[in-house]
Amino acid sequence: MGQVPEDFKITGAIAAPATALKSNGDVNPEAVADYVNFLANNEIDGVFVLGTLGEGLSLSVSERKEVAEAWVKEAKDKLSSVIVHVGAGNIRDSIELAQHAQKIGATAIACMLPSYFKPSTEAVAVEYIQQVAAAAPETPFYYYCINFMSGIYLNTAKILELASGRIPNLRGAKISSRELPSLLDSSRVCGGKLQIMVGTDEQFLPCLTLGIRVPVLNSFLGSLYKRLLKAFDAGDMDTARDEMVQARKLVLIRSKYIDGPAYVKAAMKCLGVDLGPVRLPLEDMPEHLLPSLKQDLKDLGLPVQ
Amino acid sequence: MGQVPEDFKITGAIAAPATALKSNGDVNPEAVADYVNFLANNEIDGVFVLGTLGEGLSLSVSERKEVAEAWVKEAKDKLSSVIVHVGAGNIRDSIELAQHAQKIGATAIACMLPSYFKPSTEAVAVEYIQQVAAAAPETPFYYYCINFMSGIYLNTAKILELASGRIPNLRGAKISSRELPSLLDSSRVCGGKLQIMVGTDEQFLPCLTLGIRVPVLNSFLGSLYKRLLKAFDAGDMDTARDEMVQARKLVLIRSKYIDGPAYVKAAMKCLGVDLGPVRLPLEDMPEHLLPSLKQDLKDLGLPVQ
Amino acid sequence: MGQVPEDFKITGAIAAPATALKSNGDVNPEAVADYVNFLANNEIDGVFVLGTLGEGLSLSVSERKEVAEAWVKEAKDKLSSVIVHVGAGNIRDSIELAQHAQKIGATAIACMLPSYFKPSTEAVAVEYIQQVAAAAPETPFYYYCINFMSGIYLNTAKILELASGRIPNLRGAKISSRELPSLLDSSRVCGGKLQIMVGTDEQFLPCLTLGIRVPVLNSFLGSLYKRLLKAFDAGDMDTARDEMVQARKLVLIRSKYIDGPAYVKAAMKCLGVDLGPVRLPLEDMPEHLLPSLKQDLKDLGLPVQ
Amino acid sequence: MGQVPEDFKITGAIAAPATALKSNGDVNPEAVADYVNFLANNEIDGVFVLGTLGEGLSLSVSERKEVAEAWVKEAKDKLSSVIVHVGAGNIRDSIELAQHAQKIGATAIACMLPSYFKPSTEAVAVEYIQQVAAAAPETPFYYYCINFMSGIYLNTAKILELASGRIPNLRGAKISSRELPSLLDSSRVCGGKLQIMVGTDEQFLPCLTLGIRVPVLNSFLGSLYKRLLKAFDAGDMDTARDEMVQARKLVLIRSKYIDGPAYVKAAMKCLGVDLGPVRLPLEDMPEHLLPSLKQDLKDLGLPVQ
Repeated sequence: MGQVPEDFKITGAIAAPATALKSNGDVNPEAVADYVNFLANNEIDGVFVLGTLGEGLSLSVSERKEVAEAWVKEAKDKLSSVIVHVGAGNIRDSIELAQHAQKIGATAIACMLPSYFKPSTEAVAVEYIQQVAAAAPETPFYYYCINFMSGIYLNTAKILELASGRIPNLRGAKISSRELPSLLDSSRVCGGKLQIMVGTDEQFLPCLTLGIRVPVLNSFLGSLYKRLLKAFDAGDMDTARDEMVQARKLVLIRSKYIDGPAYVKAAMKCLGVDLGPVRLPLEDMPEHLLPSLKQDLKDLGLPVQ
Repeated sequence: MGQVPEDFKITGAIAAPATALKSNGDVNPEAVADYVNFLANNEIDGVFVLGTLGEGLSLSVSERKEVAEAWVKEAKDKLSSVIVHVGAGNIRDSIELAQHAQKIGATAIACMLPSYFKPSTEAVAVEYIQQVAAAAPETPFYYYCINFMSGIYLNTAKILELASGRIPNLRGAKISSRELPSLLDSSRVCGGKLQIMVGTDEQFLPCLTLGIRVPVLNSFLGSLYKRLLKAFDAGDMDTARDEMVQARKLVLIRSKYIDGPAYVKAAMKCLGVDLGPVRLPLEDMPEHLLPSLKQDLKDLGLPVQ
Repeated sequence: MGQVPEDFKITGAIAAPATALKSNGDVNPEAVADYVNFLANNEIDGVFVLGTLGEGLSLSVSERKEVAEAWVKEAKDKLSSVIVHVGAGNIRDSIELAQHAQKIGATAIACMLPSYFKPSTEAVAVEYIQQVAAAAPETPFYYYCINFMSGIYLNTAKILELASGRIPNLRGAKISSRELPSLLDSSRVCGGKLQIMVGTDEQFLPCLTLGIRVPVLNSFLGSLYKRLLKAFDAGDMDTARDEMVQARKLVLIRSKYIDGPAYVKAAMKCLGVDLGPVRLPLEDMPEHLLPSLKQDLKDLGLPVQ
Repeated sequence: MGQVPEDFKITGAIAAPATALKSNGDVNPEAVADYVNFLANNEIDGVFVLGTLGEGLSLSVSERKEVAEAWVKEAKDKLSSVIVHVGAGNIRDSIELAQHAQKIGATAIACMLPSYFKPSTEAVAVEYIQQVAAAAPETPFYYYCINFMSGIYLNTAKILELASGRIPNLRGAKISSRELPSLLDSSRVCGGKLQIMVGTDEQFLPCLTLGIRVPVLNSFLGSLYKRLLKAFDAGDMDTARDEMVQARKLVLIRSKYIDGPAYVKAAMKCLGVDLGPVRLPLEDMPEHLLPSLKQDLKDLGLPVQ
């Protein structure tokens, strides 16, 4: 490898897949191969693994390595990027995961800050991610911000600005926080040189006006985002909005059932991909809700099985 | 008057002006005439008075009536709309203010929910605004949502949906909350028939993709928003983004000094319009920061005096 | 009247009564006479009216005056104190209510800070209450702190300390916040000269160890608190704890049904005192839960009717 | 070992020590021996290690094992108990740490719930701690609740109630949350059979009235708590209160400098015990504040060096 190219960019539609578990609760890396095919068939170009929807924080370091390896191996020739999330409760684990991600050839790494002992300033947040990024110096690094989960309400743009002078492999941020002004500010840091990826499906169209062109999807609907992007670029705002409303509907279904990874796994089951249970302290969606969820997904035109 | 027309819409760039106080703390309705001229000269088409920036909640009922009257009177022939906010700590005051607003000929009224005893469901929130709206049945009614101030995190789209069948004069909502998904959902209620106004200057461009075309501005820069809107409609996204970044810069200056009404009054003072102090428990921006604020505003191209 | 005596103290068991409303939603001051008798019969020595449980913030200024007058008039010769809460959404209303309370002869007034525009420092909080206290200079003034309702998390001890040098009629605070350390700090201000009243029934015993001896009760069980106090003073900790557990049980019943004023009104109804509905945006406890609540209160030994 | 005795109880004054780090950031188990002597000399009877003040969540699993081993080894013959906190970001790590703690002979283990993916009900919280407790079946298990750090506001008493029927080695809870009612409710579960330890120094006296007699101290002042306890038991409330006020003063000094582990390490340095730096994302107290902190501690009568 070597130095990270200045103009490194993630491209296309990225999905944030769930992490398959066996019925005994162990991670199930064997499920990754099929999952990759499923995503590729749905026009997904890359994956952001082991983040929030991937239950990364619920897995041990060795489990995370095993899962990351499976994704890098299976995605080869099928997806253009595998971004491995290495954020953890403590910096030593994150450093270990960053080293490992680089060794196995992850396309990029991303890291959130710990949420039990929260960093109290942007400066110390940068010190933290600097040490993690330095553990994988030949791998593009993305800061991962998701305030409503972490409870960390630091200024992301300020973190990026401070970090840009100190982290040579910093290439941007994945922002799942819901406040547009934060996305706007972040997109302007260093004259817009850093790449912002938006982690909220239903904000993709508004984000396009800010020049943010890569979504990290809760869903797997790569084709939808490509149609939306095409319409926007052609100035056809009505079609773009229709696609976004469709994406939003999918998110709203979620709010009727259960949040986060448990929803992803339930929805995937409806679509014929069994990813097993979630891990405690999360809870699976109750079985008896499956028929209703299936109907809702069917009504949206998804290929329910 | 009579029935509110089905297709009633607020148009143009709306500003949320501060409420001028005398040095003894009394309201100063005499200042409204000049303020109206200032706004009109800056291509502002209408005003949303006595909301958050207008310190409505810090004024007594009789003070609010006096101020509302001044705006309606002075804006005549100069602004196309005066929206009077009637939200208060208790429903009786809101009802009285709504009746009064209709009597004096306000273009529309808006109402937030009380934030000490918070409504616990969308249903009871609708019961509340229904009684207020019914007190001004010939005046268009807008629900006002600003969760980060009120601490009320109910689902705005659901409130609008429930309300649309029960409040004949409901014509939309003014949303200052910062979550785009909420704006999106609200913009789709009743097939998009209700008018959403966005209360966050720097979200105007993203909101345009949702079909939200009327901002309620913290600033007074009507011309900026008109250029932005024109660029967006012409498909010139780069120009539109440049204008929005400019708007955002103005907001970011604020974060260096003081928040809310105190900032508006300090900034207006720099521009030659003295609106007096804010009312307790708010605090004025310290005097010694004025020169620095002046410089910042000057650097943004504003006509500082 | 004249100067407030240095050593003014509220004594005995204080209750925080609900405010009776008529079925049409108007205030019902006629209900106060019976309520006073009910409280006096239950060994209640005084009342804290128009605070949180009294729905003060949901009433207009004129309604609050009317209710305060009824309490002062009816409590004469029957209760030793009527503390009138004058906190409101805006300072002008609070000042007017303070003047009125003094005029009608309230034993003391109490004032919370506004919660929409929150004071951002202890210093400005003191400026605020200083103006309110100055409007009733011959009436003892108590600061009212209830952070989980107001969202104001300022340091109460610091407010009292700053205020003690500037508010001649300041005599203490009513603290309903649940953090013991805050109660401890406040009880030590000025060498313990200020009187702290605790607004959490089930914290009365622990508070006694801090020297806090006057509760403002959610319930009406004056006799229970007198037994508890007597046991504590006699060093009989087991009996004291048994009484407190009994008080806690009454609070825990509440959590099964509905919070705040709606619970008080429902419980009072079970005991034969009809106080009417609560005011929007609060909601009454659903009728169908009354039998179950009656049973629960009966099981605790209360004289359900 | 074998079954945990029904009547197992932690006794005396427990401290929550910091975890010493080397200047390169590695854990420094060599420092434990001196630390144990220091605590024993200050009438501390036992330790709660690797919890919040012990930065447990900032350490990797292998580091935590190393530190736990040092405490168990060095405390032998000097302290009556070593409670090892095994809470972690993911359940697998907690299970591994629980097994290890039992193997090395910890007196008891304690476990908090993960705070990134928060449990959403008391029932699932119990499922979680049940699996952890089952990994060390011959070791007394304590649930650890500290809501203002974890953001988990579940009902502790309800968790204990559910858990008591399902976790044979459950012996109580360590509660650092600041709400007295929660401590009261928890102290009454199973007729008071479970042991509650209070993690807030300045709430020890009020807690004594609830029958809670073991504090887990932020400080190391075992003698202070013994004097306090003795005074309380003798019915000498004035002396007890004086001691508690002294304890509170020590806590209040903290608020002038920095919070949590960084304060403990700075204060210990003033007392001649160098525990090294804290780990990112925490920050050390700035060096230049040391003289002022030393003076403050000296003023309280502590043996500053």
